[in-house]
Amino acid sequence: ESRLPAFATHQVGVAGAVVDESSGKVLVVQDRNKTKNAWKFPGGLSDLGENIGVTAVREVFEETGVRSEFRSLLSIRQQHNHPGAFGMSDMYIICRLRPLTYDINFCVQECLRCEWLDLAELAETADTTPITARVAKLLLHGLERGFHAIDLSMEEIPAVYSGMFYQLYHRPLPQITKS
Amino acid sequence: ESRLPAFATHQVGVAGAVVDESSGKVLVVQDRNKTKNAWKFPGGLSDLGENIGVTAVREVFEETGVRSEFRSLLSIRQQHNHPGAFGMSDMYIICRLRPLTYDINFCVQECLRCEWLDLAELAETADTTPITARVAKLLLHGLERGFHAIDLSMEEIPAVYSGMFYQLYHRPLPQITKS
Repeated sequence: ESRLPAFATHQVGVAGAVVDESSGKVLVVQDRNKTKNAWKFPGGLSDLGENIGVTAVREVFEETGVRSEFRSLLSIRQQHNHPGAFGMSDMYIICRLRPLTYDINFCVQECLRCEWLDLAELAETADTTPITARVAKLLLHGLERGFHAIDLSMEEIPAVYSGMFYQLYHRPLPQITKS
Repeated sequence: ESRLPAFATHQVGVAGAVVDESSGKVLVVQDRNKTKNAWKFPGGLSDLGENIGVTAVREVFEETGVRSEFRSLLSIRQQHNHPGAFGMSDMYIICRLRPLTYDINFCVQECLRCEWLDLAELAETADTTPITARVAKLLLHGLERGFHAIDLSMEEIPAVYSGMFYQLYHRPLPQITKS
């Protein structure tokens, strides 16, 4: 599409907000290596060739021991000159996941603490990051109105020329009249 | 967040769907260098350090001569081993833009044709790509129900540690009780 040579400019980080609908709790961690002990969603960088949802599920399991499945994409943050990205940019994506297991067995190398925390508490506490508090408010809204109000759903679509699949995320369409 | 060294794995491409609400038309182009003459939204690759919305507005102007302003993020596609990305992955983002001017003066190096096309026609024609047809259906739904139904809104938030700003995209929250 561009006449300029293409090159990779972004790393992709993915966090998983594992929400237990029945209790209104969400899985959060505190990083071991950060100065402020702020609650945040577990997550990390995508490996080359790894889908967003796969990264979220993998990182949540590696950090917390909790198994989960991908439900939707909730939020995207773009940040340039990201610290730790060597002058490149960072695309940070937060997904909503559904828990498949509940027992916590967190990674002591990465995490200081790991808990199932009330979403309402996470939305109000000072011990978190602005983006985590914002997404907690978004998830609370989803708990009350249905996650349909906040979700971008995912669909796999075949790429015409390559025979491979790509993942497309957008707001759900009411009637499924797919192209 | 990860113990692995970070590196950029994705190029970011951005397309702009410039929708004229009063007429129900959208700005589309046909690429000069593609085999099939399919209508698509103008767009191209982000420069290093360039925000998503800035890329959309810039590429639309360079390809079509139409001035526009960013309104929302509509859809994200992730594709691995993208052709032209040298083994890296591609994040392709479609934004909704509002036209500020209407006269077309398209780039003959890049485009074969450029038109304001009825959204309903774009949603049904065979002369387009699957993703363009899908987003046309999404935009039609937005025209009927209000774009609120399909938009992810953007907000600039200060990064605590650097004094810089990042861009956060998610579904609008009903009451603005920002963190």
